[in-house]
Amino acid sequence: MKQAITYELIHECKQTGARRGIIHTPHGDIQTPVFMPVGTQATVKSLSPEELKDVNAQIILANTYHLFLRPGHKLVEKAGGLHKFMNWDRPILTDSGGFQVFSLGQLRKISEEGVEFQSHLDGSKKFLSPEKAIEVENSLGADIIMAFDECCEYPSTYEYTKKSMERTTRWAQRCKKAHKNVENQGLFGIIQGGFYEDLRKKSAEDLIKLDFPGYAIGGISVGEPKEKFLEILDYTTPLMPKNKPRYLMGVGTPDYLIEAVIAGIDMCDCVLPTRVARHGTALTSKGKIVVRNATYEEDFSALDDECDCYACKNYTRAYIHHLIKANEILGIRLLSLHNIKFLTNLMDKVRIEIENDNLGCFKNDFYHKYGYID
Amino acid sequence: MKQAITYELIHECKQTGARRGIIHTPHGDIQTPVFMPVGTQATVKSLSPEELKDVNAQIILANTYHLFLRPGHKLVEKAGGLHKFMNWDRPILTDSGGFQVFSLGQLRKISEEGVEFQSHLDGSKKFLSPEKAIEVENSLGADIIMAFDECCEYPSTYEYTKKSMERTTRWAQRCKKAHKNVENQGLFGIIQGGFYEDLRKKSAEDLIKLDFPGYAIGGISVGEPKEKFLEILDYTTPLMPKNKPRYLMGVGTPDYLIEAVIAGIDMCDCVLPTRVARHGTALTSKGKIVVRNATYEEDFSALDDECDCYACKNYTRAYIHHLIKANEILGIRLLSLHNIKFLTNLMDKVRIEIENDNLGCFKNDFYHKYGYID
Repeated sequence: MKQAITYELIHECKQTGARRGIIHTPHGDIQTPVFMPVGTQATVKSLSPEELKDVNAQIILANTYHLFLRPGHKLVEKAGGLHKFMNWDRPILTDSGGFQVFSLGQLRKISEEGVEFQSHLDGSKKFLSPEKAIEVENSLGADIIMAFDECCEYPSTYEYTKKSMERTTRWAQRCKKAHKNVENQGLFGIIQGGFYEDLRKKSAEDLIKLDFPGYAIGGISVGEPKEKFLEILDYTTPLMPKNKPRYLMGVGTPDYLIEAVIAGIDMCDCVLPTRVARHGTALTSKGKIVVRNATYEEDFSALDDECDCYACKNYTRAYIHHLIKANEILGIRLLSLHNIKFLTNLMDKVRIEIENDNLGCFKNDFYHKYGYID
Repeated sequence: MKQAITYELIHECKQTGARRGIIHTPHGDIQTPVFMPVGTQATVKSLSPEELKDVNAQIILANTYHLFLRPGHKLVEKAGGLHKFMNWDRPILTDSGGFQVFSLGQLRKISEEGVEFQSHLDGSKKFLSPEKAIEVENSLGADIIMAFDECCEYPSTYEYTKKSMERTTRWAQRCKKAHKNVENQGLFGIIQGGFYEDLRKKSAEDLIKLDFPGYAIGGISVGEPKEKFLEILDYTTPLMPKNKPRYLMGVGTPDYLIEAVIAGIDMCDCVLPTRVARHGTALTSKGKIVVRNATYEEDFSALDDECDCYACKNYTRAYIHHLIKANEILGIRLLSLHNIKFLTNLMDKVRIEIENDNLGCFKNDFYHKYGYID
């Protein structure tokens, strides 16, 4: 059967081993490595689809948990699917709701069958299982959909993590069986196993047997120290198939993105650029600046003098400072736009540096210039 | 001396007497009658300048009171003036702060000199006088600036209204004297006099002697019944010079706009389109709809099937309903965009109907179709 998602490897960086590739999807190609902005509730917060294209967003995420609760997947299906509902004609990826059930859902009860939880919106009882999550994702109709998994807390014991990882593998099997739309939606497996190398290995091996068109690493960047993050990344990424996309979930700080790419990752997503925007922060080539702070009140320069985004071409830090202080939506819009552009620009450069076999040097230069890494 | 603002009368509707004209300003021509969206804090809430142009905003307002308090007029002046600060190259009008001092400022003390009040932002003591308001407006640099006036509450006694109106006239004189930038900014006088015909007449006569390049009617649409509104409009507008722009302050409901134009008004402004947008309401050719309501949850039609705005061309009521329920900024943006377009479209039609000597019939048709008028 024709697969919805295929991966084409173009080049491996001789300096770092990072991968330059293309993911082919029903809604077009994605040049990788790629950063994917998050549109939790069928909108990337504050931005229009046209603006997302202007800042070179190749693919966006949406959250199954949120859309399941509101407006409901059946409504989105009636609207003609998520692409049509939100007026976005490029690729979309939906997560499975697993992560949010554990981070947002209340009073959750996990069983082999699935997870019962209370909606964070109205306290009503809801249930997500592998079958239900896939039903929801099939209704939403994203190009890439994720298997329903359990994302363990950090830290979790070896015993709990093992039990949870094994269940996640069984759930992945059930997701695969439940998936109704293989030709138009590619279902990715999620490698769990917490902070234990042997569990990550077992998870990867068992999921690879299920032959998903792509694989993700879940359950890292959940509060662990950076050394731990790098350690897991380093031993987990090589376990993933070379001929399929590799997705690291929930990562979006510039340094984590670069490290992930060097480890062999193709896709990352994070709410970071839009979330910090709402708090008045801009990512710039010289590090983060909190433009909300009084320092920028009379600063008539652009957010980032190396950036060519709409915000940087037309507005000053002083104006954006004013908008943020005055709780004006345009301030959030300009910062969100700029921050996403900063990360997509970074990935544009990363792709070029991979092709030039120069990503290692680029990383050192970037770290030096960005000033500090958090 | 060359005047910043001149008015050219093109045609008077034979059916109604409504005026079709052009206001020439340093930042370009304004086709009148015109509806002016309000950008209180140097931004029309939620929208970019490009979007305002897309919805045919010919001129926008900004509020002197707000910009005086934050970010401060001296800062805006340093930024190169309001046009440059907010990236808007079409005409701008600033009010004088008079209305806001009375509606937002706390613990105000009015004297002949001016008004002392507490900032609604931080409670600090501030003072606005005719001279100070003009200093602020000169720093902001709008094309049209308004004299500092007192806007009486509704209802107010004859005695108070008279005293206040006479002071407003004295203040207008002081404003004229204080105005430093006559060639680039046109200072308009504001006719007060509350709900008393003789006071309106006296106000108009005295202000006309001061020979301002334009005149406004202030202190109506402040909570009075519609009959009262129409009555004042009917006896005040004919008092205003024919060869100068006539501006009715704070009016934006479709029926009030049409009535104002028929009475001979050229310019109106109101926060209505953006304010009701934030509450989930759309103005449509068949009346207002509260798209936030559950009725629209599964309504896959456009906000208004007669509208060609970006929101109506690309999104359904169901999607906008979802965005508003989920507190997503894009929902406010789409409704704001649409609502302003609705009013600018209305004025486009009004201008054509004046040229066709048909505004009376248009009004009847509009009222019939719009369904209800509030």
